Amino acid sequence: MAKQAVVLVSGGLDSATTLAMAREQGFICHALSFDYGQRHRVELEAARRVASALGAVEHRVMVLDIGWMGGSALTDTRLEVPTVQSAGIPITYVPARNTIFLAVALGWAEVLKAHDLFIGANAVDYSGYPDCRPEFMSAFERLANLATRDGVQGKEFRLHAPLLHLNKAEIITAGSRLGVDFGQTISCYNPDPDGRACGQCDSCRLRARGFAAAGVPDPTRYWHK
Amino acid sequence: MAKQAVVLVSGGLDSATTLAMAREQGFICHALSFDYGQRHRVELEAARRVASALGAVEHRVMVLDIGWMGGSALTDTRLEVPTVQSAGIPITYVPARNTIFLAVALGWAEVLKAHDLFIGANAVDYSGYPDCRPEFMSAFERLANLATRDGVQGKEFRLHAPLLHLNKAEIITAGSRLGVDFGQTISCYNPDPDGRACGQCDSCRLRARGFAAAGVPDPTRYWHK
Repeated sequence: MAKQAVVLVSGGLDSATTLAMAREQGFICHALSFDYGQRHRVELEAARRVASALGAVEHRVMVLDIGWMGGSALTDTRLEVPTVQSAGIPITYVPARNTIFLAVALGWAEVLKAHDLFIGANAVDYSGYPDCRPEFMSAFERLANLATRDGVQGKEFRLHAPLLHLNKAEIITAGSRLGVDFGQTISCYNPDPDGRACGQCDSCRLRARGFAAAGVPDPTRYWHK
Repeated sequence: MAKQAVVLVSGGLDSATTLAMAREQGFICHALSFDYGQRHRVELEAARRVASALGAVEHRVMVLDIGWMGGSALTDTRLEVPTVQSAGIPITYVPARNTIFLAVALGWAEVLKAHDLFIGANAVDYSGYPDCRPEFMSAFERLANLATRDGVQGKEFRLHAPLLHLNKAEIITAGSRLGVDFGQTISCYNPDPDGRACGQCDSCRLRARGFAAAGVPDPTRYWHK
């Protein structure tokens, strides 16, 4: 019987490629997204399209209101999304986000009797985010096996982060080979209501450079340029 | 300046005692509860009373709908809450619950610039729950310090589980000494809408035996007996 996996899908390019990789490895994929008070709901529509196009057997959107905590430009509308890269940990860092997302994914996996979790985290382009580093991934996998009934009973959980050491161009090349339609994905921190990208935020710049470096035509629609 | 802590408060006797202990240690306490689709909302009213009576500076209730996952008698109304103790991990185990709750507590702590988390987990009476064991607590603390901006920058997070090795009678004795009004707390898995306990579920039995063993008058109101 094919193995099941829970795959975190954000609507972005990275998680779409991760889902395609999980499918290529033969996993039956349950896609999970979060409505966490992010400014742009178009992300969730993108996640829905991506999950469906790439053959997830189901897609759940869990409402997770962490906006009340404040502290991040992605959820706190009083903070401005910067257009230039700053040193250190960026203001778009959301406190403990991957820890929270993975904890929920783990709970769902346990109910589904799935033992594989996939996350599109990346330690190359997001080196400033503590919860995108290899050390974090290993520590979470260890926790997962101590936290759960199945883990304790010897059915080991595995956390897959297949993009961890790839740069954006390599991710785009890999996704392209697996037939990911990047036109369905959205990476922008400031999209318009139609899901068109700004072309100016960190995330847009990184994405555009990735397509250029990979030599793959960029299907992104922009509202700004 | 006094240090701040995030304290998980469920409305039960254990977390009330934990909050009293955190206050005794001089922490400014931010209480956090979850509305996670539990059958009995009277728990959350108890949490509110407890947080206020024991001097938390604020109390947040985060809506966390994990009921759609199914898999636990505490959130899945199709499963019956058992009245007799079964061997192994109980059906009232909620998948990855403490992992999810602590992940959210960690995110809030980071925003508050707090570095101490308190949880009323107990490995004596709840030995069947994997996420109530000392190994789990250490693994989470380790994760917390890898997952967060402050952790990475050397401001260490500490996870306190002061009840971990106490039995129910010892917890009641400690809480009593610190002035916890146990009449405000609720432990029952099947309370009536007024918050009166059934007296028959595992949790009620454990609690009643604890008061008897501690020699402390039991203030619990029952609807059954």
